[in-house]
Amino acid sequence: MLDTPRLVIDRRKMRRNIETMAAMARGSGVSLRPHVKTHKIPDIAREQLGAGAVGVTVAKVSEAEVMADGGVEDIFIAYPVVTGPKVRRAIALGKRVRLVVGVDSVEGARTLSVAAEAEGLTLEVRLEVDTGLKRTGVPYEEAVELARKIQGMSNLDLSGIYTYRGAVLGGSPTLDIKGAGLEEGELMVSLADRIREEGIEITDVSLGSTPTAEYVVEVDGITEIRPGTYVFYDRMQARLGACTLEECAAKVVCTVVSRPTGNRAIVDGGSKTFATDVQPGTPPLNLEGFGHVIGHPGAVLERLTEEHGMLRIRENDDLRVGDTVDIIPNHICSTVNLHDAVCMKGEDGIEEELRVAARGKVR
Amino acid sequence: MLDTPRLVIDRRKMRRNIETMAAMARGSGVSLRPHVKTHKIPDIAREQLGAGAVGVTVAKVSEAEVMADGGVEDIFIAYPVVTGPKVRRAIALGKRVRLVVGVDSVEGARTLSVAAEAEGLTLEVRLEVDTGLKRTGVPYEEAVELARKIQGMSNLDLSGIYTYRGAVLGGSPTLDIKGAGLEEGELMVSLADRIREEGIEITDVSLGSTPTAEYVVEVDGITEIRPGTYVFYDRMQARLGACTLEECAAKVVCTVVSRPTGNRAIVDGGSKTFATDVQPGTPPLNLEGFGHVIGHPGAVLERLTEEHGMLRIRENDDLRVGDTVDIIPNHICSTVNLHDAVCMKGEDGIEEELRVAARGKVR
Repeated sequence: MLDTPRLVIDRRKMRRNIETMAAMARGSGVSLRPHVKTHKIPDIAREQLGAGAVGVTVAKVSEAEVMADGGVEDIFIAYPVVTGPKVRRAIALGKRVRLVVGVDSVEGARTLSVAAEAEGLTLEVRLEVDTGLKRTGVPYEEAVELARKIQGMSNLDLSGIYTYRGAVLGGSPTLDIKGAGLEEGELMVSLADRIREEGIEITDVSLGSTPTAEYVVEVDGITEIRPGTYVFYDRMQARLGACTLEECAAKVVCTVVSRPTGNRAIVDGGSKTFATDVQPGTPPLNLEGFGHVIGHPGAVLERLTEEHGMLRIRENDDLRVGDTVDIIPNHICSTVNLHDAVCMKGEDGIEEELRVAARGKVR
Repeated sequence: MLDTPRLVIDRRKMRRNIETMAAMARGSGVSLRPHVKTHKIPDIAREQLGAGAVGVTVAKVSEAEVMADGGVEDIFIAYPVVTGPKVRRAIALGKRVRLVVGVDSVEGARTLSVAAEAEGLTLEVRLEVDTGLKRTGVPYEEAVELARKIQGMSNLDLSGIYTYRGAVLGGSPTLDIKGAGLEEGELMVSLADRIREEGIEITDVSLGSTPTAEYVVEVDGITEIRPGTYVFYDRMQARLGACTLEECAAKVVCTVVSRPTGNRAIVDGGSKTFATDVQPGTPPLNLEGFGHVIGHPGAVLERLTEEHGMLRIRENDDLRVGDTVDIIPNHICSTVNLHDAVCMKGEDGIEEELRVAARGKVR
C-alpha cells in the first residue's frame, strides 16, 4: 500500500498539457523554452523537448547541471549569476551544452566577462528587463544604456532580452491576463527595436508565463515563450483562467489522521507538504484555503502547520480517520520543491516513483 | 569560497540555548523531551540528550527512524499514527528503542491495538488533547471518555496525556505567553487528575512549547516539556519574548544579485530558502517582512518568489551586487526543512556542513 502524503502526477493529463502548449507555440511561430522549475525532473524536460521545445529554462546553475546530466543540451539560466562559485560552474557547464545566462547589472556582467575572458571563451547572455514585477531586471527605461555597456564588454555575446512578469498589468497584479500579456509583449518588442537602433544585433525577445503565453505570442516580434507551470497546472492557474481544475495533473493524496469535531478533519499534509507561498485570501486571486479539495464540496484547507492540514468540512461529510483526500495545491512549483519524489500515475493506475532530481537546490 | 544562500548555525549560541533550557527543566524537576523537528539532525539531538534531555519528540515515524539510526533510544512520536505502512514501521521501531506513540481517536487507537496484538507486543501510547489550538487532539471535554476506551484496548499501555498549544490563550492567539502557559498547564493537570480518578494510572503529563516552557513548569503536576525551536530560536520567538534576536543561532547568508533601484536590492534567497508559513503582518506577531535583516536598519525582506528575495532598503544603504546579507528567518523549523544541509560555524569561524538527515520526510 502506498503511504501518504504523496504527490501524484497524472501522466495522461501532463502529456496533454505538454502537447497543447507545444502546439500553440508552433502554430504561432514562436519558440517554446519551458521553465523546468515546476517539475525539476530531467525525464519530463526530455518529454517537453520531444514535443518541440527548443531548450529549457532554469533559475540556478545547479538546476542547469542536473538538466545537462539528464541529457538536456540547450539551457537558459534566467537569473543573474554573480557569485564566484556559480560563475565558475556556469563557465564549466558552457563547455558541455549551449548555455545562456541572464544579466541585469553592470557589476554582474563584468564578473561574467572577466571570468569568460580568463577561460578564453565567449558566454552568451541575455539582458533581463523589469516590465512591472519589480523583482530582478534592469528598470525598463535604463535597459538600452545597460545593453550598450554589456555590448562593449569582452567575451560576452548579448543575444537577446528577456522578462518575467506573470499576471501584472500597469505595474499591479491583475486578473486581466490578456491585457497583461499584450502589454508585456509590446513593451519588449518596442525595447528590442530601440536596442537594435543602437546597432546592437539582438535576436531573442523572450518572455511569457503560463497564463500570458497565449496572449504574448499575438505580438509581432517576440521570439520565445518560457511558461513553466503549464506542465502540471495548479489551482492558481485555474483561478487565472489558464486551465480548468480538471486539467491540473498534480494532486497531493493525504490521509485523515484525526476527526476531532463534526466540521473539522485533520490531514497529514501541512506546510512541509503544501507550499505556503500563495496564501489564501490574497488579492487578486483571493483563493480560499491552501488547495482545492476534490470531491468534498464546501471543504476548505483552512490552516497549515508543519505536519497538520486543518480541513473545515460540512457537518454531513462522512470523512473518517484513515480515509484519503486528494488536494490540488495552490502553487505546484514550490510544492514540488518540498517533495523528494513524485508518483507518476499511468493510465493503468500504477504509480511509479520518480526522483525530483533538481529539488532543493538552494545554491 | 562558500556560496550562498546557505543556512549557518552559530555553534556557541546553539550550545548555550541547549544548556539554558536543560538547566531550566532540571531546576523545575520536569523532564525535557525536545522536539527535534527544528533541527532534524541526530548529532544535535545527541547534544540535547547529553545536556540532560530524557529523549526526543518527533512528528513522523520516518523522523523517528532517522533519530534511532543516529543513536537516540527514547522517542515520542507526538502525532496520530494511523496508516497501515506507518503503523507497521512504528511497531518495528518499537522493538529497537523505547517508543511512545500519540493517539487521539478510537479508530486510531484500535488500529494500533490490532497491529500490536498481531505482533504480540505492547505499545506505549499517550493521548493527545486539544487545549485550544484546534488541531489534532481529542476535544478537552471528551478526553476522559476516550482515555477509558483506550485503556480497555488490548496491547496498548496508556502512559500519559499530551498537548501542543503554543501561544494561545482562551482559544485565541496571544502575546500573553505567561497567561497562555499557566492556562495550558492547569488544564492538563486538572485533566490528568480526572483521568486518574477513573482508575487509569497515567504518569506523564507532557506539554509546553518554546515560549511557554518556562511558565508551564510552574504548574504542579506537569512532568514533561517538549520545546523545539529553542535550539536555534527565530524571529517569531524573539517577537514572543522567548529570546532576543542576539540569541538566535541560525541565519541565512544571502548574496545581493541585483540592485535595480535605489531602495530595492534582490537577494538570492526566496521561498525555497525562507519558509513562508509565518507571513508578515499576521496577528498577533505582525512581523514586518520574511526575516530580520542583520546590520541594515530599516531593511525589510518584503516579498519572496521562489528564487528572489525583494529587500526594501534605505536610499543611503550602500549594498552592492555581490555583497552578502545575514537574515534571521521568521520560522526556523520550516526553514531548516528547505535545506539539505546546514553550515555549523565553530568559534574559529570555520563552517562545517552537516546533513539535515530527517529533512523532507513528508511520509
